[in-house]
Amino acid sequence: MVGFENAKKSDNGSNNKNPLSEAVINLDQGDPKVFEEYWRKMGDKCTVEIKGWEMMSYFSDLKNLCWYVLPELDQAIRGIHAAVGNATTEGRYIVVGNGSTQLCQAAIHSLASLHSSHPVSVVAASPFYSTYSEETSYQRSEIYRWEGDAMSFDKEGPYIELVTSPNNPDGTIREQVVKKPDGNAIYDFAYYWPHYTPITHSPDHDVMLFTFSKITGHAGSRIGWAIVKDKEVAKKMVYYLLLNSIGVSKESQIRAAKILNVMKETCQSETESVFEFGRDKLKKRWEMLREVVDQTHIFSLPSYPEAFCNFFQKPIQTYPGFAWLGWNEESDLASLFRNQKVLTRPGSMCGSDNKYVRVSLFSDDAVFSVFLQRLASITTDSIH
Amino acid sequence: MVGFENAKKSDNGSNNKNPLSEAVINLDQGDPKVFEEYWRKMGDKCTVEIKGWEMMSYFSDLKNLCWYVLPELDQAIRGIHAAVGNATTEGRYIVVGNGSTQLCQAAIHSLASLHSSHPVSVVAASPFYSTYSEETSYQRSEIYRWEGDAMSFDKEGPYIELVTSPNNPDGTIREQVVKKPDGNAIYDFAYYWPHYTPITHSPDHDVMLFTFSKITGHAGSRIGWAIVKDKEVAKKMVYYLLLNSIGVSKESQIRAAKILNVMKETCQSETESVFEFGRDKLKKRWEMLREVVDQTHIFSLPSYPEAFCNFFQKPIQTYPGFAWLGWNEESDLASLFRNQKVLTRPGSMCGSDNKYVRVSLFSDDAVFSVFLQRLASITTDSIH
Repeated sequence: MVGFENAKKSDNGSNNKNPLSEAVINLDQGDPKVFEEYWRKMGDKCTVEIKGWEMMSYFSDLKNLCWYVLPELDQAIRGIHAAVGNATTEGRYIVVGNGSTQLCQAAIHSLASLHSSHPVSVVAASPFYSTYSEETSYQRSEIYRWEGDAMSFDKEGPYIELVTSPNNPDGTIREQVVKKPDGNAIYDFAYYWPHYTPITHSPDHDVMLFTFSKITGHAGSRIGWAIVKDKEVAKKMVYYLLLNSIGVSKESQIRAAKILNVMKETCQSETESVFEFGRDKLKKRWEMLREVVDQTHIFSLPSYPEAFCNFFQKPIQTYPGFAWLGWNEESDLASLFRNQKVLTRPGSMCGSDNKYVRVSLFSDDAVFSVFLQRLASITTDSIH
Repeated sequence: MVGFENAKKSDNGSNNKNPLSEAVINLDQGDPKVFEEYWRKMGDKCTVEIKGWEMMSYFSDLKNLCWYVLPELDQAIRGIHAAVGNATTEGRYIVVGNGSTQLCQAAIHSLASLHSSHPVSVVAASPFYSTYSEETSYQRSEIYRWEGDAMSFDKEGPYIELVTSPNNPDGTIREQVVKKPDGNAIYDFAYYWPHYTPITHSPDHDVMLFTFSKITGHAGSRIGWAIVKDKEVAKKMVYYLLLNSIGVSKESQIRAAKILNVMKETCQSETESVFEFGRDKLKKRWEMLREVVDQTHIFSLPSYPEAFCNFFQKPIQTYPGFAWLGWNEESDLASLFRNQKVLTRPGSMCGSDNKYVRVSLFSDDAVFSVFLQRLASITTDSIH
């Protein structure tokens, strides 16, 4: 989670006239500032008001296995998936967490505890979301252990594969790669939404993770959810949430419910849909980025196949929230950017090579524009 | 955390005319319903309104070591402690968590990681808060291990003692009991507030935990904080919060800040102070409870010394939020209550004897009244 460590380094320009011109810009973490403009345009539609005496209890719905979840949020989550067609929720358990980070740990812990042999190996195909390594290691649990790249995984015994699709950092569509007995998969669908990628089918895996922050941009609310098929796994995850934090903030839940409902109501509107806004924004950024990258002759970007999107009812392109930028040199690309006062996530943190970096495209317009200028200024001459 | 498991069992009377008369009542968990009446009386003073585009970022204050904490909340926490005189905050780090449960784990993890020999023993003097055992065990961490009662702790090596004062479940004032080298203490001051106990001094320990839920009754907000002396420990705790849940809900933070500020403004008012309200409520409950207990000749309650309270500027009694109820029989008191449709927490879960139970006095008036009726109906004849 170097991004959060790095955040302080970019907080240094507030007294300048043009605060960004000389400032360090942080494109390491994926703080989704790009969406703020959209929610401002939506005006008061998503305003929530909470009275002093409301939502004071630990409990929300004693009839729900996930007893701390407000019925409004449970329904809103099922509603948005039904409207978008990006996950099956009928007959499934919704387990809400303080972001999908906490839920990913709850899922790993719960699945691992169901195996009789420990530690259970946890793997993900490289390049993988850099946080997986830290979040499966810091507790020093006896029951699971991070084993790195799924592609080279050859240990005996039970395992859990984390499958992120579209993938963070590189935007590719992923399936499980380990084909061995005694394994589980956790699908991280943080970016399986129409602004980022074509919605080609409605997945129905055993454990699927989603996060509010990357759909709407509300990272500060710390809301994520898991769609879980098996009752015992769901119960164990709820128990983990009980022991870890006694559930999830009611204030965040009520706000997330409101926002998801507004998203659902507006999602078919060409002028009001957050998916249209996000898609348009990312499309423009990717076009500008590809143009600059082509001009430099130094850097490279992945290309993505077009596919028919069931949500937009037409073939569309993929526009990931992160750019997985590579170059032809055999040296550290993140260092080059650091010299240009641009913080990025080094490829090695994602189980890959340092000739790649992950660059967040979630910043606000001003920061993105400065990034493009600095990227364009890098020439073959300047790096040798 | 049997209380949360038990919660569903008490959800069975909603179709009756007098829903409580036959219902199972849950006094096992400490859901602080007693405060709702107070916040209703306060009307719109604590209403918060949040616009759709507000507080979207992961970050709150990059100048603060605890970068996800809203400056308003950091200031409100320092403000209420200054007004009440129940903790020193000058020059100390405030680390906010999703309830003090998460922070307690963050503190144990951080302190344990600073020792070179593992696992670090974690202990608390019996009777202890029942959750300590589960929250230090479920992760199956290699670096710390729950070792139970601090009074009988005699292992070599580093240790962490959890000191809850006033104590949960029995309301007594506590100090560290293990006097060995290479140890740390975490003080849990959840109940060190003027509604429960005399404020006799302003403690300044290395790590002190507080929770919003037991001051104001807002358990659903999941807000707790630690006051931490050492910068390295505070940094490690923030890093734990980053990996565990990427910080804490902004919506809860802004609401907690508002409510704490109103508490501070009104805390010297005889008619408006939440401490006067809570104290008055608990005083009446304790008086009624002691009266019934005296009449039964079966049960016993602890007695508490009067002490001068710096906040109220007079000698006052202790009125804990839980009653630590005992009886003279050598059998399971929780079973007796279960037969009377009253759920309580068995003494054995608190490292004590099952001739004791912990009974929550945090319920609303109606539930408390039914409890007293059922308690009064238990006679020597009826139990033999």
